[in-house]
Amino acid sequence: MFKDIKLSEGRPYYLQIKDYVKKLILNGVYVKDDKLPSTRELSSILNVSRNTVVEAYRYLEDEGFIKNVPNKGAFVSYSAINNNENYFIKWDDKITNYALLADELDTYKHDIRWEKGMISFKSISPDDRLFDIEDFKKAFLNRIAIEERKILNYGYAKGYKPLIDYLLKYMENKGVNIINKDIIITNGFTEGFDIVLSALVNRGDRIICENPTHNTAIKIMKLHGLDIKGIEIYEDGINTKVLKEELTKKGAKLIFLIPSYHNPTGIIMSPEKRIEVYNIVKEFNIPIIEDGFNEELRYSGSHISPIAAFSGSGNGVIYIGSFSKVLFPGIRIGWILADKDLIYYFESIKRSRNIHTSFLDQAILYEYLSVGNFEKYINKVRKVYKEKYEWTINCIKKYIPYKRLLGEGGLHVFIELDGIKSREVLSESIKKGVIFTPGDIFYTDGKGENSLRIGFSRVDYEDIEKGIKILGDVIKNKRKGD
Amino acid sequence: MFKDIKLSEGRPYYLQIKDYVKKLILNGVYVKDDKLPSTRELSSILNVSRNTVVEAYRYLEDEGFIKNVPNKGAFVSYSAINNNENYFIKWDDKITNYALLADELDTYKHDIRWEKGMISFKSISPDDRLFDIEDFKKAFLNRIAIEERKILNYGYAKGYKPLIDYLLKYMENKGVNIINKDIIITNGFTEGFDIVLSALVNRGDRIICENPTHNTAIKIMKLHGLDIKGIEIYEDGINTKVLKEELTKKGAKLIFLIPSYHNPTGIIMSPEKRIEVYNIVKEFNIPIIEDGFNEELRYSGSHISPIAAFSGSGNGVIYIGSFSKVLFPGIRIGWILADKDLIYYFESIKRSRNIHTSFLDQAILYEYLSVGNFEKYINKVRKVYKEKYEWTINCIKKYIPYKRLLGEGGLHVFIELDGIKSREVLSESIKKGVIFTPGDIFYTDGKGENSLRIGFSRVDYEDIEKGIKILGDVIKNKRKGD
Repeated sequence: MFKDIKLSEGRPYYLQIKDYVKKLILNGVYVKDDKLPSTRELSSILNVSRNTVVEAYRYLEDEGFIKNVPNKGAFVSYSAINNNENYFIKWDDKITNYALLADELDTYKHDIRWEKGMISFKSISPDDRLFDIEDFKKAFLNRIAIEERKILNYGYAKGYKPLIDYLLKYMENKGVNIINKDIIITNGFTEGFDIVLSALVNRGDRIICENPTHNTAIKIMKLHGLDIKGIEIYEDGINTKVLKEELTKKGAKLIFLIPSYHNPTGIIMSPEKRIEVYNIVKEFNIPIIEDGFNEELRYSGSHISPIAAFSGSGNGVIYIGSFSKVLFPGIRIGWILADKDLIYYFESIKRSRNIHTSFLDQAILYEYLSVGNFEKYINKVRKVYKEKYEWTINCIKKYIPYKRLLGEGGLHVFIELDGIKSREVLSESIKKGVIFTPGDIFYTDGKGENSLRIGFSRVDYEDIEKGIKILGDVIKNKRKGD
Repeated sequence: MFKDIKLSEGRPYYLQIKDYVKKLILNGVYVKDDKLPSTRELSSILNVSRNTVVEAYRYLEDEGFIKNVPNKGAFVSYSAINNNENYFIKWDDKITNYALLADELDTYKHDIRWEKGMISFKSISPDDRLFDIEDFKKAFLNRIAIEERKILNYGYAKGYKPLIDYLLKYMENKGVNIINKDIIITNGFTEGFDIVLSALVNRGDRIICENPTHNTAIKIMKLHGLDIKGIEIYEDGINTKVLKEELTKKGAKLIFLIPSYHNPTGIIMSPEKRIEVYNIVKEFNIPIIEDGFNEELRYSGSHISPIAAFSGSGNGVIYIGSFSKVLFPGIRIGWILADKDLIYYFESIKRSRNIHTSFLDQAILYEYLSVGNFEKYINKVRKVYKEKYEWTINCIKKYIPYKRLLGEGGLHVFIELDGIKSREVLSESIKKGVIFTPGDIFYTDGKGENSLRIGFSRVDYEDIEKGIKILGDVIKNKRKGD
């Protein structure tokens, strides 16, 4: 006993000794009323100061495991109760269909994973080497100096007031009329979309979206049991003729759109089409959910207002925004801007799910944004990503025989091949160390087997060329094989 | 124009000027091809350096609103499209029953709110004046020095590995057998409980819990459409006779228990009863959800192991833990410890809800815990809260004619009055500036009208006495009135 204890750095010795003795008691090595070694004895065995052991014993007493009796020593005061009557549940019989579906649709879990040495075009996360960590640290220290301890206590379901006010102005600066609108802070787009669906749809309800569309959105819609109707998109956005027909024929409870740097295609819906879509949907009095995805990563051309800006004082557009696609995804902060009567309900749903989003993270983000860091950051990364985007486009043009190449900004491009299945390409390319996301997971109708998404944000120039050349070779070989 | 611009401190001037011009363009004051004032002109109007205006114009160009033409000036390049075709949705017709129920059960929203000058016994949050902010800052700076930028990028749904490993050891130190167990990090208890229910129950399923029980748990169970059967509790825990009868008669899909410092009663289930409950449930092969609520705030007596510790190598107990009831609730970190086969499903549900809990917060918390700050903190606050708890108990004994007074630890006590309705007491006491939580919201069957919960953690000594005396007077007056 006490011979096998290994004291390591980092955690104070007295806590390590406390943990060790606790384990002996919990495992029944020491039982009630047993006397522990004296502090002098133990300090000599462990080669630590006597005070360290005294401190360890004090904590053990504090936690209710021992009793220190003056002049007599330390005695165990805890009776371990042994209960060897275990039982085992077969979870397979208990798991809900909801959980089974969540697992089945969990592409992260089931897809090919990156391994060391691979070139991966799967990620569309920002390159964290571009994060300005010093500005972030400054934001933390400044804000905590202002808010002090209270920022670490409970906050409000709607969010941190200064951040909400900042975002309202931010949306106003995109041309959105914020009168009678309000904002709730969410844990990223994912939670925002989930909350909106919880408030507005029941199982079996019909929802219209672009086809293809964001695979996480498809997952959430399926988990809500929705009847999903995807409508094809052209280079300037959704097919409005079909949209109108579908609405006339069968209606819909909601429309979900990603007008900017659409995931996965990278298409930007033109201003004219945004208005056209808005006016069609208006006729049917249906809410539009607009995903503001990567709106900030415009590389050329003039500013395009979100659909929310075209709705003026109307209340039909629910805008879900998130910085976390370009900035600090790890802190998971997004928001919903909508009619304040709707935010009223979203607030209660949010509270029932997780009380609120981390107030510390909201406060740091607010401080970071308010002093102009975001503009500075976007200005920097836009240049970096634009060059990488152009490099990627050029490599694809050089090496890959594609049918269609899409993507006007953001952190990814989309390729349609001519009669070649992208999953077959993947099973070859992975042997050569190159992976990407097959396009079929973005389709609402099981199509898209000839397409693939190439995320370039975290891949270096050399690897982009190398990886795309490998993909090109695999594809060319497949063509010859036909 | 430009006369009404008010430059304030904090945000760089060039961004404030940028925002101002942007608004003029978005509102159609400037239209496409309009020439903006020269940088020299504007700098003189605004009394800022010319460089500031140059920088503002550079950002405007960057965002696609203007075009800077060398030697000619800055021209608007954005065409505002006016669309006055608004539409309005009547949300009342669209809101789901789920959202209506979330609103209805949102006690925070509908209950009496604290106003300045009031003495409030509603809160059971920790007193943030006890948080050691310097240790927290140190944890932030140390961890960010280790992890750097990557901690701000995407993480994993299960959580931050070092924190998970720390918590597994932490649970082992409570006597829990962690073989074949795993942990997932959640946004507090609330999300943990919601995820467990999503994985294991369908609408209409029966769940057994203590009566009264945590009101947030009742809300979540109701939102899942469960058939809730609450069983009365004695001073040593749930009525096991009724538990056995209920299980025999009608069974249950799950049992939800708060064995330590039960919310709202503050009762601790005795070790013998924990074993008894465990062995009864075992016979029926039903999962137990154990809420580890405030387990750390034991004020006297020896350590009591969680029910999870009595299940040995069995897999029937799902333990939901959270530091955030005593430490930093604002960062919302909790965890579920369960059979790893279950965590496998929880992980996919978590990912579908919000990808993951803030990795920054998890990393700071890990650093804070690993160097022994939690033990230090608990050691400090336990003394403070114990004294306050005793003071509260004494005040109640002195001033309030109660039928039963419950609560052996934690941050609250529970009072049952003799034939007096607590809501009637509240409508009188609020006039005198004292509020508390009526007990009925904790009951699964609409009972508890004579009970109230007194949270004392954030109330000062003087106010505790003053507030309880006022409550006592109101109650005595009511008795006379009968």
